[in-house]
Amino acid sequence: MKKAEISRATLGRIPVYLKYLRLLPSNVDNISATAIASGLGFGDVQVRKDLGMLCGLGKPKTGYNRTQLVESLEQYLGCKDGEAIIIGAGQLGKALLDYNGFEGFGISILAAFDKKTKKEELSISGKPILPMDMLQAFCKNNHIKLGIIAVPAESAQETFNLLYENDIKAIWCFAPCQLYKPADAVIRYENLALSLAYLKMQINQT
Amino acid sequence: MKKAEISRATLGRIPVYLKYLRLLPSNVDNISATAIASGLGFGDVQVRKDLGMLCGLGKPKTGYNRTQLVESLEQYLGCKDGEAIIIGAGQLGKALLDYNGFEGFGISILAAFDKKTKKEELSISGKPILPMDMLQAFCKNNHIKLGIIAVPAESAQETFNLLYENDIKAIWCFAPCQLYKPADAVIRYENLALSLAYLKMQINQT
Repeated sequence: MKKAEISRATLGRIPVYLKYLRLLPSNVDNISATAIASGLGFGDVQVRKDLGMLCGLGKPKTGYNRTQLVESLEQYLGCKDGEAIIIGAGQLGKALLDYNGFEGFGISILAAFDKKTKKEELSISGKPILPMDMLQAFCKNNHIKLGIIAVPAESAQETFNLLYENDIKAIWCFAPCQLYKPADAVIRYENLALSLAYLKMQINQT
Repeated sequence: MKKAEISRATLGRIPVYLKYLRLLPSNVDNISATAIASGLGFGDVQVRKDLGMLCGLGKPKTGYNRTQLVESLEQYLGCKDGEAIIIGAGQLGKALLDYNGFEGFGISILAAFDKKTKKEELSISGKPILPMDMLQAFCKNNHIKLGIIAVPAESAQETFNLLYENDIKAIWCFAPCQLYKPADAVIRYENLALSLAYLKMQINQT
């Protein structure tokens, strides 16, 4: 089925549904949205809405076929285009290389690249930090589609251009800056300072 | 004036307005929202709305008194309650300690604490990593109101409880988990994996 536009909140629940469905006893062949909701402590309406949007409606009385439901959800997260690289292996780049929450969403960060690196270093969680001159071949051989910018703001545009030239058009940018980009590139800015400032504002108002 | 509930986007623009106003030639005493909008390349309506909400309306013809406008914006970001600590000095904790975008929002991260640390280490950007037994005195002496959880999920609840006991009720949690909390605590969860997954979904749909 065609993928609908879903919210961040729904997307965030997919790995939770998957984990729950995979851990059910092996003799459970069918399961209703209501049973899933009650098992997870979620609202019934929310689970119905999520699953309806992601996998269509369950059958009356029997609910969803468990195997099919798992497959639909896995397909939604998709293994395709889930390989990412990081540019910049400072504190932040290393932290992202080490962060182990990405796999639940079908995303693997394969390596980091840094201009200070002269030859391959095997460092964080067994993932390599590579010199910049290995970037082009690495992206081509591994069909990388996601790039993470973890360099200082003053090098971010140059880094974006390099990623774009290597056919990486989805960029997650941690540098506090605004990038010029062609229309077919998608950039998501992560402003960590803003998140904390927003939290601070919330407590100042209570 | 009482602080209105503003959006993340508006909050994110305050440091931009401040920087612009501070860098104006010293003989500029008054400035209109239109002039600020044009100087920053922002929409006129947006700047009027932001400043109107944050600082009230400017005077007809003259606009805003520059000094007063700067003071209002600074007051909005507030220096009060802007001191934060990090628990967990692994890769992520260190990256946050090193991240230099917080100051623009009136937030200072003063130190990180880690249970593996036995005596004070002066490490990242001159900020110390301290042993856990120094936490209580440090929080009290520095009136810390913001806590950042950068420990693994399995230690996050214990860490939250400890922060709460030390009167820290605003928590920014990087651990992928859900915390039990008293009603007067505010927790903001940062799900980095979800951000990347959402970006991936966007490119899969184009």
